[in-house]
Amino acid sequence: MKILVINSGSSSIKFKLYDMKNESVMCKGLIEQIGSDNSFAKISTAHGSIKEISRPIANHAQGIDIMNELLFNSGVVNSLDEIDGVGHRVVQGADVFSDAVLIDESVMAKIEELIPLAPLHNPAHLAGMRETLKVRPDIPNVAVFDTVFHQTMPKSSYMYALPIEFYEKYKIRKYGFHGTSHQFVSKAAAKILNIDYDKFSCITLHLGNGASIAAIKNGKCIDTTMGLTPLEGLMMGTRCGSIDPAIMPFLMENANLSAKEVDNIMNKKSGLLAIGGSNDMRIIEQKMDAGDENAKLAFDMFVLKVKKFIGAYIAILGKIDSIIFTAGIGENDARIREAVCEGLEIFDIKIDKIKNKESKDEPRRISQIDSKVRIAIVPTDEELAIAQDALRIIKNKGNK
Amino acid sequence: MKILVINSGSSSIKFKLYDMKNESVMCKGLIEQIGSDNSFAKISTAHGSIKEISRPIANHAQGIDIMNELLFNSGVVNSLDEIDGVGHRVVQGADVFSDAVLIDESVMAKIEELIPLAPLHNPAHLAGMRETLKVRPDIPNVAVFDTVFHQTMPKSSYMYALPIEFYEKYKIRKYGFHGTSHQFVSKAAAKILNIDYDKFSCITLHLGNGASIAAIKNGKCIDTTMGLTPLEGLMMGTRCGSIDPAIMPFLMENANLSAKEVDNIMNKKSGLLAIGGSNDMRIIEQKMDAGDENAKLAFDMFVLKVKKFIGAYIAILGKIDSIIFTAGIGENDARIREAVCEGLEIFDIKIDKIKNKESKDEPRRISQIDSKVRIAIVPTDEELAIAQDALRIIKNKGNK
Repeated sequence: MKILVINSGSSSIKFKLYDMKNESVMCKGLIEQIGSDNSFAKISTAHGSIKEISRPIANHAQGIDIMNELLFNSGVVNSLDEIDGVGHRVVQGADVFSDAVLIDESVMAKIEELIPLAPLHNPAHLAGMRETLKVRPDIPNVAVFDTVFHQTMPKSSYMYALPIEFYEKYKIRKYGFHGTSHQFVSKAAAKILNIDYDKFSCITLHLGNGASIAAIKNGKCIDTTMGLTPLEGLMMGTRCGSIDPAIMPFLMENANLSAKEVDNIMNKKSGLLAIGGSNDMRIIEQKMDAGDENAKLAFDMFVLKVKKFIGAYIAILGKIDSIIFTAGIGENDARIREAVCEGLEIFDIKIDKIKNKESKDEPRRISQIDSKVRIAIVPTDEELAIAQDALRIIKNKGNK
Repeated sequence: MKILVINSGSSSIKFKLYDMKNESVMCKGLIEQIGSDNSFAKISTAHGSIKEISRPIANHAQGIDIMNELLFNSGVVNSLDEIDGVGHRVVQGADVFSDAVLIDESVMAKIEELIPLAPLHNPAHLAGMRETLKVRPDIPNVAVFDTVFHQTMPKSSYMYALPIEFYEKYKIRKYGFHGTSHQFVSKAAAKILNIDYDKFSCITLHLGNGASIAAIKNGKCIDTTMGLTPLEGLMMGTRCGSIDPAIMPFLMENANLSAKEVDNIMNKKSGLLAIGGSNDMRIIEQKMDAGDENAKLAFDMFVLKVKKFIGAYIAILGKIDSIIFTAGIGENDARIREAVCEGLEIFDIKIDKIKNKESKDEPRRISQIDSKVRIAIVPTDEELAIAQDALRIIKNKGNK
């Protein structure tokens, strides 16, 4: 079985083709700057060949056509018929979807209804789905949602203390994101630690340019830091995370900014970038080492917020087997991991500073032998998780 | 020494006269609905006499005059000359005031400059100060700030991950409130537990209609839940607390509300009231017992958020000697206290369910004998704390 994974963003399409026999990547590619004059497409295969196309790509339909052209021309497949199914990443499935699902007109209509909750993402996802279905109407397409894993949160976790009609009328509640990643790394960790997933309780730290944490009890998410949107929770590359909700009206009143301007600042000009001068933690640390006080402040703020959520989630989980670092910062930044764990010995979280510094590209334990809570690094792979989910749904369909 | 404490709000003045020899309350009173036709004033003395006046009170100047009239007419003092000093509660001292201070023109000018940070409160405080100084220019007046106790927070705790110019230009940062209460109850608890305050680490839970939590390390506040404004943090009687900061622009876009309307909803129509139908936890619990699911949800949400902050603060404190419940709900609601502590045994927080249910009006321990973290109830007394602070400042002045 060959499964193609498509992540269709507002002006880009990323794709990866998997041979599911051994879950190997046959090729991966991207189409960037769709709708601009500088658009281009690129594919690189497992055999090391790379092809690039630079030409205007007006819309997602053209983008999907070029993707197909690249897949065929690169020699990864002899015919598009070799692809058995497609998995589409969808950011926002709200409370409508509690699992990945085979795409048909009614599914697309529901994803369309959710556009107000994901105004940039869901239209792009739909454009990708529509074109894929048009080109290959014969193969199954599966929608895999970032929000599904968090659908097990209890109501007391996902409700905001706002008038209930905001929930009923506008669907305002905590959804959480990065769900595919939180599930993927927690399952992998349970496997490594040899604990049944449905008895496994842990905290997953997805720390990348976007960052979120999930509290997982017996294999089910019971809380997460992102909310209605991916702005809530941690301080991120360019996002402020949770702040006093009265700051926006304060800025509108005192700084003569519109709501849209403040929203844009909170999402794109805040976080590490605003405090430390870069949205890249590696640069923050370089600046910090060169004596930049604001970079040090950004580092400290980031770490403090992560620590606080770990404590908060232990309080509601009762006991945990493991904390799991993943994503760009979580997988690669030993210094952040050490700083996050420092002082958490009170929770029986004891990092092995030597192991923590080893640079490896595989899941591993970095806690001390006597640490009751096992600290693990698990590289996330959202595309593979999507491919696995797509395959599972396609197989289930076959069984029906 | 007799110290008068004045809490001058936007349309009310509350006052209390203390005999500081034994810190006893000689009388207390209030003036309500200033500026309306229904305004009235009331005083009750320690001897049980009560006087009320119902007449239009146009402004704070008239309010202070009526307060003086009541103080004199009630027979508590033979002459206003018997009052040795006045302590004024001030909500917002920002980072300008790191201690209580003798009021003079320059202090009032600074409090005036902070009006954008406390647009409802600081003008009312100033009106009270000006009139008091006019009537009795000969006695010392002291400003005691809600924010002072939190001024020891490290920068990594109080900064928001927003553009730094918002901090520099508009003073946007976390200030925290209820500081007088957090300090008062933590000091009292240290005394009861026989621990030097400067070695005492604890979490103070001020749970009233307004609610906040503080993390105190070696007698110094290192974090608190309220922020730039008293909206941040916990779910409260009518306030939503921390929510995704993108909800306001979402509501403006989708529900056709203005920023002011959303701000008003977040402050006055959210919290327990929005979810459970009442801003009074006693009524929430009655409704919950009668089978009201939304009331149960409000109760659970409130408890969950408190629990999470306890965990978060243990993560940054490392170890704590005590958690301290205070204010309306904290002092009187055994059920909330039990629910908050449930599941926190992992932190060595073990509540004694019997002791917890005893109804007493004094500071007391409610943890089990073997609970490493001592759980205490300490009735807060912000007015007494203000009187104590005023007395300290007045005596220091005398010593200079």
